[in-house]
Amino acid sequence: MCPATRRTGPIPEYPDLPLSLNARVRPSPFFEASLEHGVGAVTVYNHMVMPVAYEGVEQGYHDLTEGVTIWDVGGQRQVEVTGPDAARFTQYVVTRDVTKMAVGRARYTLVCQGDGGILNDPVLLRLGQNHFWLSLADSDILLWAKGVAHDSVFDVSIAEPDVSPVQIQGPRSADLMRPLFGSFVDELKFYQFIETDLEGVPLVVSRTGWSGEFGYEIFLREGSRGRWLWERLFEAGEPFGVKAGAPNNIRRMEAGLLSYGTDMDSSMNPLELGLEKFVDLDGDDDFIGKTALIDVARSGPARGRIGLFVGGDPIRQSPIRWWPVTIAGEETGVVTSTTWSPRLEKNIAYAVVSADHAVPDLTLTIHTPDAPRQAITTPIPFVDPRYR
Amino acid sequence: MCPATRRTGPIPEYPDLPLSLNARVRPSPFFEASLEHGVGAVTVYNHMVMPVAYEGVEQGYHDLTEGVTIWDVGGQRQVEVTGPDAARFTQYVVTRDVTKMAVGRARYTLVCQGDGGILNDPVLLRLGQNHFWLSLADSDILLWAKGVAHDSVFDVSIAEPDVSPVQIQGPRSADLMRPLFGSFVDELKFYQFIETDLEGVPLVVSRTGWSGEFGYEIFLREGSRGRWLWERLFEAGEPFGVKAGAPNNIRRMEAGLLSYGTDMDSSMNPLELGLEKFVDLDGDDDFIGKTALIDVARSGPARGRIGLFVGGDPIRQSPIRWWPVTIAGEETGVVTSTTWSPRLEKNIAYAVVSADHAVPDLTLTIHTPDAPRQAITTPIPFVDPRYR
Repeated sequence: MCPATRRTGPIPEYPDLPLSLNARVRPSPFFEASLEHGVGAVTVYNHMVMPVAYEGVEQGYHDLTEGVTIWDVGGQRQVEVTGPDAARFTQYVVTRDVTKMAVGRARYTLVCQGDGGILNDPVLLRLGQNHFWLSLADSDILLWAKGVAHDSVFDVSIAEPDVSPVQIQGPRSADLMRPLFGSFVDELKFYQFIETDLEGVPLVVSRTGWSGEFGYEIFLREGSRGRWLWERLFEAGEPFGVKAGAPNNIRRMEAGLLSYGTDMDSSMNPLELGLEKFVDLDGDDDFIGKTALIDVARSGPARGRIGLFVGGDPIRQSPIRWWPVTIAGEETGVVTSTTWSPRLEKNIAYAVVSADHAVPDLTLTIHTPDAPRQAITTPIPFVDPRYR
Repeated sequence: MCPATRRTGPIPEYPDLPLSLNARVRPSPFFEASLEHGVGAVTVYNHMVMPVAYEGVEQGYHDLTEGVTIWDVGGQRQVEVTGPDAARFTQYVVTRDVTKMAVGRARYTLVCQGDGGILNDPVLLRLGQNHFWLSLADSDILLWAKGVAHDSVFDVSIAEPDVSPVQIQGPRSADLMRPLFGSFVDELKFYQFIETDLEGVPLVVSRTGWSGEFGYEIFLREGSRGRWLWERLFEAGEPFGVKAGAPNNIRRMEAGLLSYGTDMDSSMNPLELGLEKFVDLDGDDDFIGKTALIDVARSGPARGRIGLFVGGDPIRQSPIRWWPVTIAGEETGVVTSTTWSPRLEKNIAYAVVSADHAVPDLTLTIHTPDAPRQAITTPIPFVDPRYR
């Protein structure tokens, strides 16, 4: 190892920067409950405050992987598409084949722009033949969808409904859910959902989540009942050691889950990120970006996504700007996310690099803000998702 | 005063919630400089970390109104519109008459959706006959504009360029600017700009800002030079006691400036917010929302915006959810922003209420989270902008 790559000093630690609160950065219906549970760090997601840690990200990892956790993910806003052309329009703005989706089914999908660049990676829920929700990652797809629909041939209504998700994630999730909702929670298949209620409060319950663990999402359809729902969930989870939790960077990276804005943006297309199974290029229906993506598929993507094992001290701060990656002194791409994996006892990272370097067992150099480090490429996911 | 309105306990104070940093919440080119200057609180603006205070909002108010301050407002992202139909397209997505704008001029404008609801209130800069920037408030107008342009008749390119603004605000702003840029800074009219450079680094310099004080914006066109520019500005401002500053909630409210997402959203139209002078309903050209707004103008807006003087202890926390406003027990609207004004020695607030209550000298009740308070309606601005 050359001297330069042995300088593995700490990645810069940033001071705590308190988030200023006002009506522009909206509190979710669960915000006050999160405060009561001692939320320790937050992000802003779709213009909404969203917890990311309570007693630290590593404690959150253990809570999530060993028990059951409740997450305020109200920031996953829904874009609701209804009207006579809702199915045709939804087909046009997502990369999956919507015609094959049954009511009551959800799908992870992508929203692309004309050149195939990714604008969001929502979960699409079909609530009716012409009734859809796009459960969003962090970008204003409400504006994109309204813009596309404007002056278009589609007769649709597009709105952000009063719907706020909470995630129940971890191996004991079903134990929490069963007393509240009955045994149907055991029968729900992955990416299946039902419209139901709890004591008359309307909800959608789905077998989805962003954890890599077994779990559910509950979509609250009456924002004023957020605190009540949170308390009911905690009561039900108490026998199983429920904890307040949040999207966990360590576990999601082990599972290979991507974060829009962190690991992908509109400069990247689904094929170079290894997301081709979420893009139906063979269907009869057109969608925005399809022509460009067919071209990419024909010529082969120029870049690829690959995992990295990174040497040196544990990395506990993800890049705030993507770190350059070089091979033999030549720039080949960027590192988008990093974490220390307690399970693997290694630093793991996601990189997007030239296609010929997106293969396992290459040695690359990543350029952290204070020193370069050596890294070995490895397939993603790092750890097989426990439940699919 | 009835007993209920005398319970003027403190508005809830929230614990410091540290913002988690990763590549999704982007640092601006001035981020490290802001850290060095001891930034004390931040927000997230167009997916970017943006300082809102250094030594507190009240100290920031004094720095801004008495000297000169430098603000990292890199979060004011630009949407750049170019191509053969750039002028026609820009005309279509903003409420002002673009045909009358000269190159080198900027205008405060609104972007509306079909029903007239406001999507953003950018400053529009005309850099060429077919070259525009929309300098954005906090919503993804890049996606809206791309969506509207998709499948449209307009031959345009729409992108987010490498452009990051910094604001120089306060009565001594010209003193800071003159040694760097020469005497033309004294000749720039309000909402006029020029394309220039500093030591070869390309910039746009405009007589604009979001402070209510005299000031400039410098649009850095080479993100890698953020720290360098910040340092050059500080050196130039040192003789005049320059301080790091930020958009200041107190001063902007005194001046009547609105914050998109805080004081307006897509449920409100420009006419009910008193923004009719920024909407050209009489022009020949069509723009999105025009038909709906003509209808509103004909029937008269249902709501209006009005200022409030609010009784009780100083209010130092703006609503995180709009506070209800009642008159004689009937709900009439919401309070969107509040602050203590050191100059007026009063609590001031913005409200949007039924049109017949949007007149001065009415007594209303505002419902803070802990107790109702009495308020008297008053015209906006509370303090005349010092320079126009």
